[in-house]
Amino acid sequence: MQLSIVKIGGNVIDDEAKLETFLAAFAAVPGKKILVHGGGKLATKVAEGLGVQQQMLDGRRITDAETLKIVTMVYAGTINKNIVARLQAKGCNAMGLTGADGNAILAHKRVHATIDYGYVGDVDAVDAALLTSLLMLDKTLVLAPITHDGKGQLLNTNADTIAQEVARALCRSFDTSLVYSFEKSGVLLDADDDSSVITRIDPAYYKQLKEQQVIFAGMIPKLDNAFAALHSGVGKVIIGRAERLSALLTGQSGTTIVHA
Amino acid sequence: MQLSIVKIGGNVIDDEAKLETFLAAFAAVPGKKILVHGGGKLATKVAEGLGVQQQMLDGRRITDAETLKIVTMVYAGTINKNIVARLQAKGCNAMGLTGADGNAILAHKRVHATIDYGYVGDVDAVDAALLTSLLMLDKTLVLAPITHDGKGQLLNTNADTIAQEVARALCRSFDTSLVYSFEKSGVLLDADDDSSVITRIDPAYYKQLKEQQVIFAGMIPKLDNAFAALHSGVGKVIIGRAERLSALLTGQSGTTIVHA
Repeated sequence: MQLSIVKIGGNVIDDEAKLETFLAAFAAVPGKKILVHGGGKLATKVAEGLGVQQQMLDGRRITDAETLKIVTMVYAGTINKNIVARLQAKGCNAMGLTGADGNAILAHKRVHATIDYGYVGDVDAVDAALLTSLLMLDKTLVLAPITHDGKGQLLNTNADTIAQEVARALCRSFDTSLVYSFEKSGVLLDADDDSSVITRIDPAYYKQLKEQQVIFAGMIPKLDNAFAALHSGVGKVIIGRAERLSALLTGQSGTTIVHA
Repeated sequence: MQLSIVKIGGNVIDDEAKLETFLAAFAAVPGKKILVHGGGKLATKVAEGLGVQQQMLDGRRITDAETLKIVTMVYAGTINKNIVARLQAKGCNAMGLTGADGNAILAHKRVHATIDYGYVGDVDAVDAALLTSLLMLDKTLVLAPITHDGKGQLLNTNADTIAQEVARALCRSFDTSLVYSFEKSGVLLDADDDSSVITRIDPAYYKQLKEQQVIFAGMIPKLDNAFAALHSGVGKVIIGRAERLSALLTGQSGTTIVHA
Protein backbone atom coordinates (compact mmCIF):
# COMPACT_ATOMS: atom_id res chain seq x y z
CA MET A 1 0.00 0.00 0.00
CA GLN A 2 1.24 3.48 -0.95
CA LEU A 3 2.20 5.94 1.80
CA SER A 4 3.37 9.50 1.15
CA ILE A 5 5.16 11.31 3.96
CA VAL A 6 5.61 15.00 3.26
CA LYS A 7 7.64 17.42 5.34
CA ILE A 8 6.96 21.14 5.00
CA GLY A 9 9.13 23.80 6.55
CA GLY A 10 8.67 27.30 7.87
CA ASN A 11 8.94 28.88 4.42
CA VAL A 12 5.62 27.25 3.45
CA ILE A 13 3.88 27.84 6.78
CA ASP A 14 4.79 31.53 6.81
CA ASP A 15 3.48 32.20 3.29
CA GLU A 16 -0.32 32.01 3.09
CA ALA A 17 -0.43 31.58 -0.72
CA LYS A 18 2.18 28.79 -0.68
CA LEU A 19 0.44 27.06 2.23
CA GLU A 20 -2.98 27.15 0.53
CA THR A 21 -1.55 25.74 -2.72
CA PHE A 22 0.28 23.06 -0.79
CA LEU A 23 -2.70 22.03 1.37
CA ALA A 24 -4.97 21.74 -1.71
CA ALA A 25 -2.37 19.53 -3.43
CA PHE A 26 -1.75 17.48 -0.28
CA ALA A 27 -5.49 16.89 0.27
CA ALA A 28 -5.71 15.55 -3.30
CA VAL A 29 -2.83 13.04 -2.95
CA PRO A 30 -4.32 9.53 -3.22
CA GLY A 31 -3.52 6.77 -0.71
CA LYS A 32 -2.31 6.96 2.86
CA LYS A 33 -0.44 10.09 3.86
CA ILE A 34 1.35 11.88 6.67
CA LEU A 35 2.24 15.55 6.86
CA VAL A 36 5.11 16.64 9.12
CA HIS A 37 5.30 20.36 9.69
CA GLY A 38 8.03 22.58 11.05
CA GLY A 39 7.68 25.82 12.88
CA GLY A 40 8.00 29.04 10.96
CA LYS A 41 8.28 32.58 12.23
CA LEU A 42 5.17 32.58 14.42
CA ALA A 43 7.04 31.11 17.42
CA THR A 44 9.58 33.93 17.21
CA LYS A 45 6.78 36.52 16.99
CA VAL A 46 4.96 35.07 20.00
CA ALA A 47 8.26 34.91 21.95
CA GLU A 48 8.90 38.58 21.15
CA GLY A 49 5.34 39.47 22.11
CA LEU A 50 5.70 37.72 25.46
CA GLY A 51 9.17 39.17 26.03
CA VAL A 52 10.92 35.76 25.98
CA GLN A 53 14.54 36.14 24.85
CA GLN A 54 15.69 33.64 22.23
CA GLN A 55 19.06 32.23 23.24
CA MET A 56 21.41 31.31 20.41
CA LEU A 57 24.58 29.30 20.93
CA ASP A 58 26.98 28.47 18.08
CA GLY A 59 24.27 29.66 15.67
CA ARG A 60 21.68 27.26 17.07
CA ARG A 61 18.55 28.14 18.96
CA ILE A 62 18.48 26.85 22.53
CA THR A 63 15.12 25.55 23.73
CA ASP A 64 15.01 26.77 27.31
CA ALA A 65 11.91 26.15 29.46
CA GLU A 66 10.16 29.34 28.31
CA THR A 67 10.93 28.66 24.64
CA LEU A 68 9.61 25.11 25.00
CA LYS A 69 6.30 26.54 26.28
CA ILE A 70 6.10 28.78 23.23
CA VAL A 71 6.94 26.13 20.62
CA THR A 72 4.46 23.75 22.27
CA MET A 73 1.72 26.42 22.02
CA VAL A 74 2.57 27.44 18.49
CA TYR A 75 3.54 24.12 16.86
CA ALA A 76 1.11 21.74 18.61
CA GLY A 77 -1.63 24.38 19.06
CA THR A 78 -1.84 27.09 16.42
CA ILE A 79 -0.06 25.53 13.43
CA ASN A 80 -1.10 21.90 13.89
CA LYS A 81 -4.79 22.61 14.55
CA ASN A 82 -5.13 25.18 11.79
CA ILE A 83 -3.62 22.78 9.26
CA VAL A 84 -5.92 20.00 10.50
CA ALA A 85 -9.04 22.21 10.22
CA ARG A 86 -8.05 23.42 6.75
CA LEU A 87 -7.41 19.88 5.50
CA GLN A 88 -10.78 18.80 6.93
CA ALA A 89 -12.39 21.60 4.88
CA LYS A 90 -10.75 20.12 1.77
CA GLY A 91 -12.26 16.68 2.41
CA CYS A 92 -9.07 15.23 3.91
CA ASN A 93 -9.77 13.55 7.26
CA ALA A 94 -6.73 14.90 9.11
CA MET A 95 -5.73 14.13 12.68
CA GLY A 96 -3.00 16.08 14.44
CA LEU A 97 -0.50 14.44 16.77
CA THR A 98 2.63 15.25 18.70
CA GLY A 99 5.03 12.49 19.69
CA ALA A 100 3.47 12.50 23.16
CA ASP A 101 0.02 11.60 21.81
CA GLY A 102 -0.45 7.87 22.12
CA ASN A 103 3.32 7.72 22.81
CA ALA A 104 3.75 7.97 19.03
CA ILE A 105 7.35 9.22 19.15
CA LEU A 106 9.53 8.68 22.18
CA ALA A 107 12.71 10.78 22.45
CA HIS A 108 15.39 11.74 24.96
CA LYS A 109 16.79 15.14 25.83
CA ARG A 110 19.85 15.71 23.66
CA VAL A 111 23.16 15.01 25.35
CA HIS A 112 26.09 17.00 23.96
CA ALA A 113 29.63 17.30 25.30
CA THR A 114 29.81 21.10 25.20
CA ILE A 115 26.42 22.57 24.27
CA ASP A 116 23.25 22.39 26.37
CA TYR A 117 20.54 22.55 23.73
CA GLY A 118 17.88 22.65 26.42
CA TYR A 119 14.59 20.80 25.80
CA VAL A 120 15.56 19.37 22.43
CA GLY A 121 14.67 15.75 21.76
CA ASP A 122 16.49 13.11 19.75
CA VAL A 123 14.16 10.32 18.59
CA ASP A 124 14.42 6.87 20.20
CA ALA A 125 11.32 5.07 18.92
CA VAL A 126 8.33 5.53 16.63
CA ASP A 127 5.21 3.48 17.41
CA ALA A 128 4.65 2.10 13.91
CA ALA A 129 1.70 -0.04 15.10
CA LEU A 130 -0.16 3.02 16.38
CA LEU A 131 0.50 5.12 13.27
CA THR A 132 -0.51 2.19 11.06
CA SER A 133 -3.75 1.71 13.03
CA LEU A 134 -4.62 5.39 12.60
CA LEU A 135 -3.81 5.30 8.87
CA MET A 136 -6.01 2.20 8.53
CA LEU A 137 -8.85 4.19 10.14
CA ASP A 138 -8.46 6.39 7.02
CA LYS A 139 -6.98 9.28 8.93
CA THR A 140 -4.30 11.50 7.45
CA LEU A 141 -1.77 12.24 10.18
CA VAL A 142 -0.42 15.72 10.77
CA LEU A 143 2.66 15.59 13.00
CA ALA A 144 3.91 18.58 14.98
CA PRO A 145 7.66 18.67 15.78
CA ILE A 146 7.16 18.04 19.50
CA THR A 147 7.98 14.71 21.17
CA HIS A 148 8.25 13.53 24.78
CA ASP A 149 10.59 11.48 26.94
CA GLY A 150 7.98 9.24 28.56
CA LYS A 151 8.70 10.87 31.91
CA GLY A 152 6.42 13.85 31.45
CA GLN A 153 8.80 16.12 29.57
CA LEU A 154 7.84 17.52 26.16
CA LEU A 155 10.78 18.05 23.78
CA ASN A 156 11.30 20.23 20.70
CA THR A 157 12.34 17.94 17.83
CA ASN A 158 13.56 18.64 14.31
CA ALA A 159 10.77 18.07 11.77
CA ASP A 160 13.16 16.62 9.12
CA THR A 161 14.25 14.01 11.65
CA ILE A 162 10.65 13.17 12.56
CA ALA A 163 9.77 12.71 8.88
CA GLN A 164 12.75 10.44 8.36
CA GLU A 165 12.21 8.36 11.50
CA VAL A 166 8.50 7.92 10.73
CA ALA A 167 9.34 6.88 7.16
CA ARG A 168 11.88 4.34 8.43
CA ALA A 169 9.38 2.92 10.91
CA LEU A 170 6.51 2.63 8.40
CA CYS A 171 8.37 1.48 5.28
CA ARG A 172 8.18 -2.14 6.47
CA SER A 173 4.38 -2.01 6.09
CA PHE A 174 3.92 0.54 3.28
CA ASP A 175 5.46 1.39 -0.08
CA THR A 176 6.76 4.71 1.29
CA SER A 177 7.68 7.93 -0.51
CA LEU A 178 9.33 10.64 1.58
CA VAL A 179 9.12 14.22 0.31
CA TYR A 180 11.26 16.96 1.81
CA SER A 181 9.96 20.35 0.84
CA PHE A 182 12.50 23.02 0.43
CA GLU A 183 12.85 26.64 -0.73
CA LYS A 184 14.31 25.60 -4.11
CA SER A 185 12.96 23.50 -6.96
CA GLY A 186 15.27 20.59 -6.14
CA VAL A 187 18.96 19.80 -6.01
CA LEU A 188 20.52 22.23 -8.50
CA LEU A 189 23.50 21.81 -10.85
CA ASP A 190 23.96 25.58 -10.62
CA ALA A 191 22.99 26.95 -7.21
CA ASP A 192 22.00 30.28 -8.80
CA ASP A 193 19.77 28.77 -11.49
CA ASP A 194 16.50 27.34 -10.20
CA SER A 195 15.88 25.70 -13.60
CA SER A 196 19.02 23.53 -13.30
CA VAL A 197 17.27 20.83 -11.21
CA ILE A 198 18.91 17.41 -11.19
CA THR A 199 15.97 15.04 -11.79
CA ARG A 200 17.48 11.89 -10.34
CA ILE A 201 20.44 11.09 -8.11
CA ASP A 202 21.72 7.59 -7.35
CA PRO A 203 24.71 6.78 -5.10
CA ALA A 204 27.26 6.75 -7.97
CA TYR A 205 26.07 10.11 -9.33
CA TYR A 206 26.03 11.55 -5.78
CA LYS A 207 29.69 10.55 -5.34
CA GLN A 208 30.53 12.22 -8.65
CA LEU A 209 28.58 15.43 -7.78
CA LYS A 210 30.41 15.68 -4.46
CA GLU A 211 33.80 15.14 -6.12
CA GLN A 212 32.99 17.86 -8.66
CA GLN A 213 31.87 20.08 -5.76
CA VAL A 214 28.52 20.68 -7.49
CA ILE A 215 26.93 19.66 -4.19
CA PHE A 216 28.35 21.45 -1.22
CA ALA A 217 27.97 22.22 2.46
CA GLY A 218 24.26 22.66 3.29
CA MET A 219 23.02 20.11 0.78
CA ILE A 220 25.28 17.25 1.89
CA PRO A 221 23.54 16.42 5.21
CA LYS A 222 20.15 16.55 3.44
CA LEU A 223 21.29 14.07 0.81
CA ASP A 224 23.12 11.88 3.33
CA ASN A 225 19.84 11.68 5.25
CA ALA A 226 17.96 10.86 2.07
CA PHE A 227 20.32 7.97 1.27
CA ALA A 228 20.15 6.80 4.89
CA ALA A 229 16.34 6.67 4.56
CA LEU A 230 16.64 4.63 1.34
CA HIS A 231 19.02 2.22 3.04
CA SER A 232 16.43 1.73 5.78
CA GLY A 233 13.89 0.63 3.19
CA VAL A 234 12.11 3.84 2.20
CA GLY A 235 11.12 3.44 -1.47
CA LYS A 236 12.08 6.90 -2.67
CA VAL A 237 13.02 10.30 -1.34
CA ILE A 238 12.08 13.45 -3.23
CA ILE A 239 13.37 16.97 -2.63
CA GLY A 240 11.57 19.98 -4.12
CA ARG A 241 9.01 22.75 -3.70
CA ALA A 242 5.97 22.02 -1.50
CA GLU A 243 3.71 24.01 -3.84
CA ARG A 244 4.51 21.51 -6.62
CA LEU A 245 3.61 18.47 -4.52
CA SER A 246 1.66 16.53 -7.17
CA ALA A 247 4.47 16.95 -9.70
CA LEU A 248 7.02 15.94 -7.07
CA LEU A 249 5.18 12.69 -6.40
CA THR A 250 4.95 11.82 -10.11
CA GLY A 251 8.62 12.71 -10.73
CA GLN A 252 7.78 15.69 -12.96
CA SER A 253 9.39 18.15 -10.56
CA GLY A 254 12.13 18.09 -7.95
CA THR A 255 14.99 15.69 -7.40
CA THR A 256 14.29 12.01 -6.76
CA ILE A 257 16.92 10.16 -4.76
CA VAL A 258 17.09 6.49 -5.70
CA HIS A 259 19.09 3.38 -4.79
CA ALA A 260 20.67 2.81 -8.19
CA MET B 1 -17.63 -2.21 28.88
CA GLN B 2 -17.03 0.57 31.43
CA LEU B 3 -16.22 4.08 30.22
CA SER B 4 -15.42 7.00 32.56
CA ILE B 5 -15.65 10.51 31.12
CA VAL B 6 -14.19 13.13 33.45
CA LYS B 7 -14.39 16.88 32.97
CA ILE B 8 -11.93 19.08 34.84
CA GLY B 9 -12.18 22.83 34.94
CA GLY B 10 -9.80 25.73 35.30
CA ASN B 11 -9.69 25.48 39.10
CA VAL B 12 -7.85 22.14 38.78
CA ILE B 13 -5.62 23.17 35.86
CA ASP B 14 -4.47 26.35 37.62
CA ASP B 15 -3.49 24.58 40.84
CA GLU B 16 -0.41 22.38 40.41
CA ALA B 17 -1.03 20.31 43.57
CA LYS B 18 -4.69 19.63 42.63
CA LEU B 19 -3.72 18.79 39.06
CA GLU B 20 -1.01 16.33 40.14
CA THR B 21 -3.38 14.58 42.58
CA PHE B 22 -6.06 14.44 39.92
CA LEU B 23 -3.79 13.10 37.16
CA ALA B 24 -2.43 10.34 39.44
CA ALA B 25 -6.00 9.30 40.32
CA PHE B 26 -7.17 9.53 36.70
CA ALA B 27 -4.24 7.43 35.43
CA ALA B 28 -5.24 4.73 37.96
CA VAL B 29 -8.92 4.55 36.92
CA PRO B 30 -9.51 1.08 35.40
CA GLY B 31 -11.25 0.62 32.04
CA LYS B 32 -11.74 2.99 29.14
CA LYS B 33 -11.56 6.68 29.92
CA ILE B 34 -11.77 10.16 28.46
CA LEU B 35 -10.60 13.40 30.06
CA VAL B 36 -12.15 16.68 28.94
CA HIS B 37 -10.30 19.75 30.12
CA GLY B 38 -11.27 23.39 30.26
CA GLY B 39 -9.02 26.39 30.07
CA GLY B 40 -7.91 28.05 33.26
CA LYS B 41 -6.15 31.33 33.75
CA LEU B 42 -3.23 30.72 31.39
CA ALA B 43 -5.17 31.95 28.34
CA THR B 44 -5.89 35.23 30.12
CA LYS B 45 -2.21 35.55 31.10
CA VAL B 46 -1.03 34.91 27.54
CA ALA B 47 -3.63 37.37 26.19
CA GLU B 48 -2.39 40.01 28.62
CA GLY B 49 1.23 39.25 27.69
CA LEU B 50 0.45 39.65 24.00
CA GLY B 51 -1.66 42.76 24.61
CA VAL B 52 -4.89 41.17 23.35
CA GLN B 53 -7.90 42.80 24.99
CA GLN B 54 -10.51 40.40 26.35
CA GLN B 55 -13.96 41.58 25.29
CA MET B 56 -16.77 40.87 27.70
CA LEU B 57 -20.43 41.28 26.76
CA ASP B 58 -23.26 40.67 29.23
CA GLY B 59 -20.68 39.07 31.53
CA ARG B 60 -19.55 36.58 28.89
CA ARG B 61 -16.20 36.41 27.19
CA ILE B 62 -16.34 37.04 23.44
CA THR B 63 -14.03 34.89 21.34
CA ASP B 64 -12.83 37.33 18.70
CA ALA B 65 -10.23 36.25 16.11
CA GLU B 66 -7.26 37.15 18.33
CA THR B 67 -8.75 35.41 21.37
CA LEU B 68 -9.43 32.29 19.29
CA LYS B 69 -5.73 32.20 18.35
CA ILE B 70 -4.81 32.36 22.03
CA VAL B 71 -7.25 29.71 23.25
CA THR B 72 -6.15 27.41 20.40
CA MET B 73 -2.50 27.84 21.47
CA VAL B 74 -3.16 27.44 25.16
CA TYR B 75 -5.92 24.80 25.23
CA ALA B 76 -4.85 22.57 22.29
CA GLY B 77 -1.11 23.27 22.71
CA THR B 78 0.10 23.97 26.24
CA ILE B 79 -2.61 22.42 28.42
CA ASN B 80 -3.53 19.44 26.25
CA LYS B 81 0.04 18.34 25.48
CA ASN B 82 1.29 18.80 29.03
CA ILE B 83 -1.58 16.71 30.39
CA VAL B 84 -0.90 14.04 27.75
CA ALA B 85 2.85 13.90 28.55
CA ARG B 86 2.16 13.76 32.30
CA LEU B 87 -0.38 10.94 31.92
CA GLN B 88 2.11 9.04 29.72
CA ALA B 89 4.63 9.35 32.56
CA LYS B 90 2.07 7.72 34.87
CA GLY B 91 1.65 4.72 32.55
CA CYS B 92 -1.59 5.98 31.01
CA ASN B 93 -1.42 5.90 27.21
CA ALA B 94 -3.06 9.27 26.59
CA MET B 95 -3.82 10.82 23.21
CA GLY B 96 -4.88 14.46 22.90
CA LEU B 97 -7.51 15.60 20.44
CA THR B 98 -9.48 18.67 19.52
CA GLY B 99 -12.81 18.35 17.73
CA ALA B 100 -11.02 19.09 14.44
CA ASP B 101 -8.76 16.04 14.77
CA GLY B 102 -10.25 13.22 12.76
CA ASN B 103 -13.42 15.36 12.61
CA ALA B 104 -14.15 14.08 16.13
CA ILE B 105 -16.54 16.91 17.05
CA LEU B 106 -18.26 19.02 14.43
CA ALA B 107 -19.81 22.31 15.54
CA HIS B 108 -21.25 25.50 14.12
CA LYS B 109 -20.54 29.11 15.06
CA ARG B 110 -23.13 30.14 17.64
CA VAL B 111 -26.06 32.09 16.28
CA HIS B 112 -27.69 34.45 18.80
CA ALA B 113 -30.32 37.11 18.22
CA THR B 114 -28.54 39.94 20.02
CA ILE B 115 -25.02 38.82 21.05
CA ASP B 116 -22.17 38.00 18.68
CA TYR B 117 -20.15 35.54 20.74
CA GLY B 118 -17.50 35.39 18.02
CA TYR B 119 -15.78 32.09 17.33
CA VAL B 120 -17.78 30.03 19.80
CA GLY B 121 -18.99 26.63 18.63
CA ASP B 122 -22.17 24.75 19.48
CA VAL B 123 -21.80 21.00 18.95
CA ASP B 124 -23.59 19.33 16.02
CA ALA B 125 -22.07 15.86 15.93
CA VAL B 126 -19.62 13.61 17.77
CA ASP B 127 -17.94 10.85 15.75
CA ALA B 128 -18.64 7.98 18.13
CA ALA B 129 -17.11 5.44 15.74
CA LEU B 130 -13.77 7.27 15.72
CA LEU B 131 -13.66 7.75 19.50
CA THR B 132 -14.62 4.10 20.01
CA SER B 133 -11.86 2.95 17.62
CA LEU B 134 -9.29 5.00 19.53
CA LEU B 135 -10.52 3.68 22.89
CA MET B 136 -10.31 0.14 21.50
CA LEU B 137 -6.66 0.83 20.61
CA ASP B 138 -6.27 1.24 24.40
CA LYS B 139 -5.76 4.98 24.20
CA THR B 140 -7.08 7.32 26.86
CA LEU B 141 -8.48 10.37 25.10
CA VAL B 142 -7.73 13.90 26.33
CA LEU B 143 -10.10 16.38 24.71
CA ALA B 144 -9.34 20.10 24.46
CA PRO B 145 -12.35 22.46 24.30
CA ILE B 146 -11.76 23.42 20.66
CA THR B 147 -13.96 22.16 17.82
CA HIS B 148 -14.30 23.05 14.12
CA ASP B 149 -17.05 23.73 11.61
CA GLY B 150 -15.78 21.46 8.83
CA LYS B 151 -15.11 24.54 6.68
CA GLY B 152 -11.68 25.30 8.11
CA GLN B 153 -12.79 27.34 11.13
CA LEU B 154 -11.72 26.35 14.63
CA LEU B 155 -14.23 27.19 17.37
CA ASN B 156 -13.97 27.70 21.13
CA THR B 157 -16.42 25.28 22.79
CA ASN B 158 -17.56 24.84 26.38
CA ALA B 159 -15.84 21.85 28.00
CA ASP B 160 -18.97 20.84 30.01
CA THR B 161 -20.90 20.65 26.75
CA ILE B 162 -18.17 18.57 25.09
CA ALA B 163 -18.14 16.13 28.02
CA GLN B 164 -21.93 15.79 27.86
CA GLU B 165 -22.12 15.38 24.08
CA VAL B 166 -19.31 12.81 24.07
CA ALA B 167 -21.04 10.88 26.88
CA ARG B 168 -24.34 10.91 24.95
CA ALA B 169 -22.61 9.68 21.79
CA LEU B 170 -20.69 6.87 23.49
CA CYS B 171 -23.26 5.60 26.00
CA ARG B 172 -24.82 3.41 23.29
CA SER B 173 -21.59 1.36 23.19
CA PHE B 174 -20.26 1.72 26.74
CA ASP B 175 -21.55 1.61 30.30
CA THR B 176 -20.77 5.31 30.75
CA SER B 177 -20.12 7.34 33.91
CA LEU B 178 -19.82 11.11 33.49
CA VAL B 179 -17.97 13.04 36.19
CA TYR B 180 -18.16 16.82 36.37
CA SER B 181 -15.46 18.18 38.58
CA PHE B 182 -16.27 21.24 40.47
CA GLU B 183 -14.84 23.54 43.18
CA LYS B 184 -17.06 22.02 45.90
CA SER B 185 -17.38 18.51 47.29
CA GLY B 186 -20.70 17.94 45.57
CA VAL B 187 -24.24 19.33 45.61
CA LEU B 188 -24.63 20.76 49.12
CA LEU B 189 -27.67 20.90 51.42
CA ASP B 190 -26.10 23.99 52.96
CA ALA B 191 -24.11 26.04 50.45
CA ASP B 192 -21.77 27.24 53.23
CA ASP B 193 -21.02 23.80 54.61
CA ASP B 194 -18.80 21.66 52.37
CA SER B 195 -19.56 18.60 54.52
CA SER B 196 -23.29 18.74 53.73
CA VAL B 197 -22.95 16.85 50.44
CA ILE B 198 -26.10 15.20 49.09
CA THR B 199 -24.90 11.71 48.14
CA ARG B 200 -27.62 10.82 45.69
CA ILE B 201 -30.25 12.75 43.75
CA ASP B 202 -33.02 11.19 41.68
CA PRO B 203 -35.70 13.14 39.74
CA ALA B 204 -38.22 13.11 42.62
CA TYR B 205 -35.66 14.35 45.16
CA TYR B 206 -34.43 16.98 42.66
CA LYS B 207 -37.99 18.32 42.32
CA GLN B 208 -38.28 18.49 46.12
CA LEU B 209 -34.87 20.21 46.54
CA LYS B 210 -35.87 22.82 43.96
CA GLU B 211 -39.24 23.40 45.66
CA GLN B 212 -37.48 23.83 49.02
CA GLN B 213 -35.01 26.19 47.28
CA VAL B 214 -32.09 24.14 48.62
CA ILE B 215 -30.83 24.09 45.03
CA PHE B 216 -30.74 27.47 43.41
CA ALA B 217 -29.51 29.52 40.45
CA GLY B 218 -26.03 28.29 39.41
CA MET B 219 -26.64 24.66 40.32
CA ILE B 220 -29.90 24.25 38.37
CA PRO B 221 -28.42 24.27 34.81
CA LYS B 222 -25.70 21.81 35.97
CA LEU B 223 -28.29 19.40 37.34
CA ASP B 224 -30.63 19.88 34.38
CA ASN B 225 -27.69 18.92 32.14
CA ALA B 226 -26.94 15.92 34.32
CA PHE B 227 -30.54 14.67 34.06
CA ALA B 228 -30.53 15.34 30.31
CA ALA B 229 -27.41 13.16 30.01
CA LEU B 230 -29.13 10.38 32.01
CA HIS B 231 -32.18 10.60 29.74
CA SER B 232 -29.85 10.15 26.74
CA GLY B 233 -28.62 6.88 28.19
CA VAL B 234 -25.61 7.86 30.28
CA GLY B 235 -25.45 5.41 33.20
CA LYS B 236 -24.65 7.89 35.95
CA VAL B 237 -23.51 11.45 36.42
CA ILE B 238 -21.33 12.41 39.37
CA ILE B 239 -20.52 15.91 40.58
CA GLY B 240 -17.64 16.53 43.01
CA ARG B 241 -13.98 17.39 43.53
CA ALA B 242 -11.50 16.30 40.84
CA GLU B 243 -8.86 15.52 43.49
CA ARG B 244 -11.20 12.86 44.95
CA LEU B 245 -11.75 11.13 41.61
CA SER B 246 -11.45 7.52 42.81
CA ALA B 247 -13.93 8.13 45.62
CA LEU B 248 -16.29 9.90 43.19
CA LEU B 249 -16.31 6.89 40.90
CA THR B 250 -17.06 4.47 43.75
CA GLY B 251 -19.77 6.72 45.19
CA GLN B 252 -17.81 7.47 48.39
CA SER B 253 -17.59 11.16 47.59
CA GLY B 254 -19.60 13.69 45.59
CA THR B 255 -23.18 13.66 44.43
CA THR B 256 -24.39 10.91 42.15
CA ILE B 257 -27.30 11.80 39.89
CA VAL B 258 -29.45 8.77 39.09
CA HIS B 259 -32.63 7.92 37.17
CA ALA B 260 -34.67 6.76 40.15
